[in-house]
Amino acid sequence: MFAKEPLDEFGLIEKYFAPLAGKGGFGLKDDIALLSTDNVVSKDVLVSGVHFFPDDPPDFIARKALRVNISDIIAKGAQPCAYMLGLVLTPETDENWIAGFAAGLALDQEIFGISLLGGDTTRQSGRGQIVVSLTIFGQAPLSGDLVRRNGAMPGDYIFVTGTIGDAVLGLSVASGKLSSKEAHAQYLLGRYRLPEPRLALAPVIAAKATAALDVSDGLIADAGHLARASGVGIDIDSGNLPLSDAARSWCAVQPDMQAALVTLATGGDDYEILCAVKPSDTPEFLELAKQANVDVTKIGVSTDKSAGRVEFLSSDGSVIDVAKAGYNHFVP
Amino acid sequence: MFAKEPLDEFGLIEKYFAPLAGKGGFGLKDDIALLSTDNVVSKDVLVSGVHFFPDDPPDFIARKALRVNISDIIAKGAQPCAYMLGLVLTPETDENWIAGFAAGLALDQEIFGISLLGGDTTRQSGRGQIVVSLTIFGQAPLSGDLVRRNGAMPGDYIFVTGTIGDAVLGLSVASGKLSSKEAHAQYLLGRYRLPEPRLALAPVIAAKATAALDVSDGLIADAGHLARASGVGIDIDSGNLPLSDAARSWCAVQPDMQAALVTLATGGDDYEILCAVKPSDTPEFLELAKQANVDVTKIGVSTDKSAGRVEFLSSDGSVIDVAKAGYNHFVP
Repeated sequence: MFAKEPLDEFGLIEKYFAPLAGKGGFGLKDDIALLSTDNVVSKDVLVSGVHFFPDDPPDFIARKALRVNISDIIAKGAQPCAYMLGLVLTPETDENWIAGFAAGLALDQEIFGISLLGGDTTRQSGRGQIVVSLTIFGQAPLSGDLVRRNGAMPGDYIFVTGTIGDAVLGLSVASGKLSSKEAHAQYLLGRYRLPEPRLALAPVIAAKATAALDVSDGLIADAGHLARASGVGIDIDSGNLPLSDAARSWCAVQPDMQAALVTLATGGDDYEILCAVKPSDTPEFLELAKQANVDVTKIGVSTDKSAGRVEFLSSDGSVIDVAKAGYNHFVP
Repeated sequence: MFAKEPLDEFGLIEKYFAPLAGKGGFGLKDDIALLSTDNVVSKDVLVSGVHFFPDDPPDFIARKALRVNISDIIAKGAQPCAYMLGLVLTPETDENWIAGFAAGLALDQEIFGISLLGGDTTRQSGRGQIVVSLTIFGQAPLSGDLVRRNGAMPGDYIFVTGTIGDAVLGLSVASGKLSSKEAHAQYLLGRYRLPEPRLALAPVIAAKATAALDVSDGLIADAGHLARASGVGIDIDSGNLPLSDAARSWCAVQPDMQAALVTLATGGDDYEILCAVKPSDTPEFLELAKQANVDVTKIGVSTDKSAGRVEFLSSDGSVIDVAKAGYNHFVP
């Protein structure tokens, strides 16, 4: 009675998404999913042309959509466990694209130990972009507290994981502003396309951070969010930014080193964790991070200067003018 | 340091959405929200040009987005309590639109006793449609079970709430196929724009239904979903479809009454509850529905005929050929 069209929604869900469903997702055969207790939840929406390029590989789009959401959960000290998927396709999206997208989800489900609970798939009727709207659930920390943005105190040290600025350079590669023939171009492109949520650091954040969030809008903008919520100022030492070899190489050929550092510290899409740690807890924080095999770098300190104010300091202690701090998706 | 642009994301969220945040939503000042225990979750995505018209009033778009999700929760016997909002705007969406949209959310939050937990707002970079992606949470039933699609047994009676087919006629009014000057046009348009989730019936569903779901794809298509999941057939008596005065008036001027009934039974967007009830539980189900002040109508019976097969029967018991059962958003 219900013959399946080639791209029939039910057929696609059965074929590509039902295999991804976890316990509580009822095999995606119901309208609803069950959550267990102590859940935390977060949501990030990705739009083609804003957060990824229409011709990016679909498995990378899927994995990036998962990872920017996983990143939110981990930065709070929680463990990601499941997600709901809202997917808006265009009339042109074919089954190959969907198969690639689902394969990307499957791979990252393995890597991060998460499963799909349910969702909704639809198509634009005419012109329009692909939209990936994910709601992700996590288990609150077993020991320690859920880490909010608002717990930093003046004097706390400010740490960041991994390296900063690779993604904004990768975006330049993707958009053709940086040559894809450069030695580090593929590395940078990879960092833009596929953030690396620091899963192993989640329990360390839960145990030792006073405030934390993931760096999505840019290091300085997100430091501002943490500072505002906590009612503190934050001083960031520009000379202590953790940079990859690729970012260092790029900086080396820029005419103005300070401007280069501002570019890296205001570019978005790093998806590293920015957190505040009490000085007295710092030795143990560093030891636990080392055991978790996650690089962390002390980049600054929170202050009792005006709340929400972030100062990006040069090596001589002067304040660098950061004209446009952070990439705001809302202001094209 | 962070001057607010006229349509800055943070400013908009602070102004329009933070006031809607509930307990566990941290005033939308964090990346994450806390859920309490025994939660159920569902997600429906609405796209401009598919699920609503671009020039529909924004408060109606917001309320419809909430209600199609609330409808999923209620049809399972659960109580809606909170939601996450993913909103993709176009470059042209202005603050008036957002203010209207938020006002619609606020009104239905009051009516249904729910609150906003968090979400993400972004803009299309160029051409594109408005997308509203909602994830809704509910409390599992306090007594009785969460009602799935798969519990109907042969012999169970099939009930539906309210009236069927108004929304598809309302869509015809909205798209200009039916004159908006007709006596019932505004009523029908209202039924399309603003579904009426039967909140008061949720505990009755939890107590007495063996299977249930909300009617979104069309009565016959959704009966098929319930039938397939339960491994039963379903016979629907076309003469027993509950019709509004507006739908009756429309039927009366159609050349072919059977074709008219098929149109109503395959049109989507009713968001009424379709459920199966054991014959022995039916008297109590009807009494509880009456106490809840929700109209329910027995429209058929589940059978041991081939699983998933829905037969739409004329008054003489013959099977009406339903060429295209149900509105599938995936097949334009």
